[in-house]
Amino acid sequence: MKDYYLKKADENMPVQTNRIKASDTVVEIYEDESKHMGIGFKTVGTIKDELVPGDKFILDFGDHCVGKLSFKVNRVKTYLDAPVKLKLKFGEIPYEMSRDFSTFYGTLCQSWLQEEIIYVDYEGLVEMPRRYAFRFLEVEVLATPRKIRLSEFQVKITTCADESNMEPLPEGTDPMLVKIDKVSARTLADCMQEVYEDGPKRDRRLWSGDLRVQALTDSVLFKNKELAKRCMYLFAACQKDGQYLPGCLYYKPELFYDEGMGISDYALIYAVTLCDYYENYGDKETALDLYPIAAKQVDLAMSIHDEDGIITFLDGWVAFIDWAEGIKKRTAVQGVYLYALEKMEKLARDLGKTEDADRYAKHLEITRKNAYEKLFCKEKNAFINKYDDEQYSVQAQVWMILGGVICGEEAKSVLKQSFEKATVIPGTPYMHHYVMEAMMKLGMKDEAIAYMKSYWGEMVELGADTFWEVHVPGKQMLTHMKDPLLNSWCHAWSCSPSYFIRKYFID
Amino acid sequence: MKDYYLKKADENMPVQTNRIKASDTVVEIYEDESKHMGIGFKTVGTIKDELVPGDKFILDFGDHCVGKLSFKVNRVKTYLDAPVKLKLKFGEIPYEMSRDFSTFYGTLCQSWLQEEIIYVDYEGLVEMPRRYAFRFLEVEVLATPRKIRLSEFQVKITTCADESNMEPLPEGTDPMLVKIDKVSARTLADCMQEVYEDGPKRDRRLWSGDLRVQALTDSVLFKNKELAKRCMYLFAACQKDGQYLPGCLYYKPELFYDEGMGISDYALIYAVTLCDYYENYGDKETALDLYPIAAKQVDLAMSIHDEDGIITFLDGWVAFIDWAEGIKKRTAVQGVYLYALEKMEKLARDLGKTEDADRYAKHLEITRKNAYEKLFCKEKNAFINKYDDEQYSVQAQVWMILGGVICGEEAKSVLKQSFEKATVIPGTPYMHHYVMEAMMKLGMKDEAIAYMKSYWGEMVELGADTFWEVHVPGKQMLTHMKDPLLNSWCHAWSCSPSYFIRKYFID
Repeated sequence: MKDYYLKKADENMPVQTNRIKASDTVVEIYEDESKHMGIGFKTVGTIKDELVPGDKFILDFGDHCVGKLSFKVNRVKTYLDAPVKLKLKFGEIPYEMSRDFSTFYGTLCQSWLQEEIIYVDYEGLVEMPRRYAFRFLEVEVLATPRKIRLSEFQVKITTCADESNMEPLPEGTDPMLVKIDKVSARTLADCMQEVYEDGPKRDRRLWSGDLRVQALTDSVLFKNKELAKRCMYLFAACQKDGQYLPGCLYYKPELFYDEGMGISDYALIYAVTLCDYYENYGDKETALDLYPIAAKQVDLAMSIHDEDGIITFLDGWVAFIDWAEGIKKRTAVQGVYLYALEKMEKLARDLGKTEDADRYAKHLEITRKNAYEKLFCKEKNAFINKYDDEQYSVQAQVWMILGGVICGEEAKSVLKQSFEKATVIPGTPYMHHYVMEAMMKLGMKDEAIAYMKSYWGEMVELGADTFWEVHVPGKQMLTHMKDPLLNSWCHAWSCSPSYFIRKYFID
Repeated sequence: MKDYYLKKADENMPVQTNRIKASDTVVEIYEDESKHMGIGFKTVGTIKDELVPGDKFILDFGDHCVGKLSFKVNRVKTYLDAPVKLKLKFGEIPYEMSRDFSTFYGTLCQSWLQEEIIYVDYEGLVEMPRRYAFRFLEVEVLATPRKIRLSEFQVKITTCADESNMEPLPEGTDPMLVKIDKVSARTLADCMQEVYEDGPKRDRRLWSGDLRVQALTDSVLFKNKELAKRCMYLFAACQKDGQYLPGCLYYKPELFYDEGMGISDYALIYAVTLCDYYENYGDKETALDLYPIAAKQVDLAMSIHDEDGIITFLDGWVAFIDWAEGIKKRTAVQGVYLYALEKMEKLARDLGKTEDADRYAKHLEITRKNAYEKLFCKEKNAFINKYDDEQYSVQAQVWMILGGVICGEEAKSVLKQSFEKATVIPGTPYMHHYVMEAMMKLGMKDEAIAYMKSYWGEMVELGADTFWEVHVPGKQMLTHMKDPLLNSWCHAWSCSPSYFIRKYFID
């Protein structure tokens, strides 16, 4: 089957749009504590007509771009009788431009730093072969035999998002929502490459957790059904008996996934992705084709509930849920399972797989009841339980709500209380997405809009062109890799505001 | 006419042979005063199976190569989930490998230093787009997310020298001459690119002085008639009324030459190149086509003799002759003129241009007589004259002999005495070529062989794979660009021993 799934994935390789974006706007960066990470920028002019060794300038492309750079190198007067040596440094945000990359001290591989030293042997057009994710480009002339002119800097944008499919928001939409929607759409488009990448600057791989958020958001924006299909088939090609799907995969130069890298909640979210896909595109053929893979995830989870009826982890497998210090995840994973199971019940029924649907329904009922009894603490009005060291996290409440363990006013009260009293709060935009989902499930539209404007809106106010991998209000230097220089500032799992805006917040 | 000449040049664009040369031989360099520039090398093994950041090794390709590098990057075990960052440093000789390129302090543009920092995004074959001239390649792993294997290093050799045209030297040839011939042939082949380059590492341009030596040597080695033709047409495209041809030209991205860069002796040598070409290949069509250009050089020189009948310089024009400290050049240029004029007389006569031939013959006779009277000092048995500050140089004697101002025993005595008494001696292999020519003209075959074995043979004994731009016995660190790091160690004007060996020294 692996070859079949890979073939289907190949057949759905998306077409790149190849839009061009040019810039000759030179900016300067400066220190300013009021700006994001303490660095602001301002326009100062255009590129000087004549450049000599030591000259450098920062170009601003005006928006986040993913693509391949080209520019022209020409002599000012006489022939360039030696190569021109240039240093190019790319940054998604001003902070990156303020850092000398050689000072990077993070835990990620420094080879992700977007910097090149190039030699231009002959004047004319320089077409750089690699892809970069950036808004700012610093160019430094390291060596040239004679004065040069640098011009026509442009990026051949790579994305398979067809932006003409994106409908304008209705007139009168809240201006902050309009801004947030724009940034969401840019985030998603820039992550839409040959797969839904998690971040176009770094990693660039396909994670099933991110895939779900991306495909869902894409269904209200660019509607690239083929890309969603391709990504689901790539994961299908990784299925092994007795195991969840891997949390992430690589497809270049050939399919690879790390067998030691299992993420329980992400495997369950794969099933959700297929359910969404069928719901949004009605493509029964693909749904039937991939149903066995999705079913395997929930069936496997179903088979590893312990004697208390609470989900366990496969040997060596972990859960992601969120980046939040000290977070315990078992309750949340239980919720993810129930959330997936509910969607799978519906899919099974829609596809005429009644026996499965009935089995899922039955298990849903039992497990929800069980979870409520074993995991919910009525006294504390929260899911605080021995399985998670009695930790009080927003994450657990959110997933129990999405898993349908509690609902209605009780759920609202649990959720609202958690925002005030929980000791572990959402860390990633990915988790914030599920908080939003929980609020919408509970009909808390006004609160959800306010939540979005507060969380994603703050990024917009801080100057985000695309939404970030990490954002915790008040902690601008936060990173999970020791040095924020390699944080991803255009990150897939942060792109979902457009989904909520377009599905729920506009008429 | 410019377009016509360029079209002819294009029509004669040579075909590249694209031979492959591979290496997995790892060497170490070490300090040793007995070695060339104090650096030796020894083989220590092959590339390690597993490499991590910080690992580095030097590969030895066994001989001087010009071409494009490719190699493979592979994971040892698990997927490379970040780019692999490598530093590559190329060197023609061990000394270059001993230097940190960032310490370069020479006057040439540092962009000629052959060094790259590259990022390999996906494992597999890496094909580097630029051309390098090297025997040694240092590879350093700057960053990799996991252990890597580097393998299959190979160079796609670029040359238009068809080495199958090169006849083996007869059995019994003096072994040192065999060695010198091999190094000469490698030098020439590696300079034979889209033009006869002066040096494949650096400059890479077409100089008319070098062209003559290369085309002449090529006529006894690879016999690439088209390349010689192409180069002569490129110069023809640069002809301007009332000026000599430029000393050098560039042809990429389009024809360019520096109008302020005129070299009187090189322009005259252009005429010699055409005469050689006709003599060696008998191509009358091309000779007739380019005759007017060659004739313009000698005619122009003829028109700028002063009232004493001694050649002068065009306003702003210089002469090259040789790199030798303090050298005065007017006598030598007079010799170059006469040397060219004699060849042009023959060519004119062969092509049926009798009127020109008669004029050249007449002028030859007058000017030789004149030169002897005005420039030769009988007392001192040498050309030591007021026009050159009474400087006594080998160069002046050589060119007066080649110009036919003196001949026979008198010339032999002048030449031999100059080797002992002159205060200015040949500095470049280019000038040594003309010393050899003068000796052969005077029938001094044994002395010429000894001279070659002493001069070029010393380079061979010092480990030269190709002959150097600069070689003065006892002055290994000599450079004309302050730092010897960017000396060219494969240089066109040093390639002519094969010409003498194959034309005169073997039966």
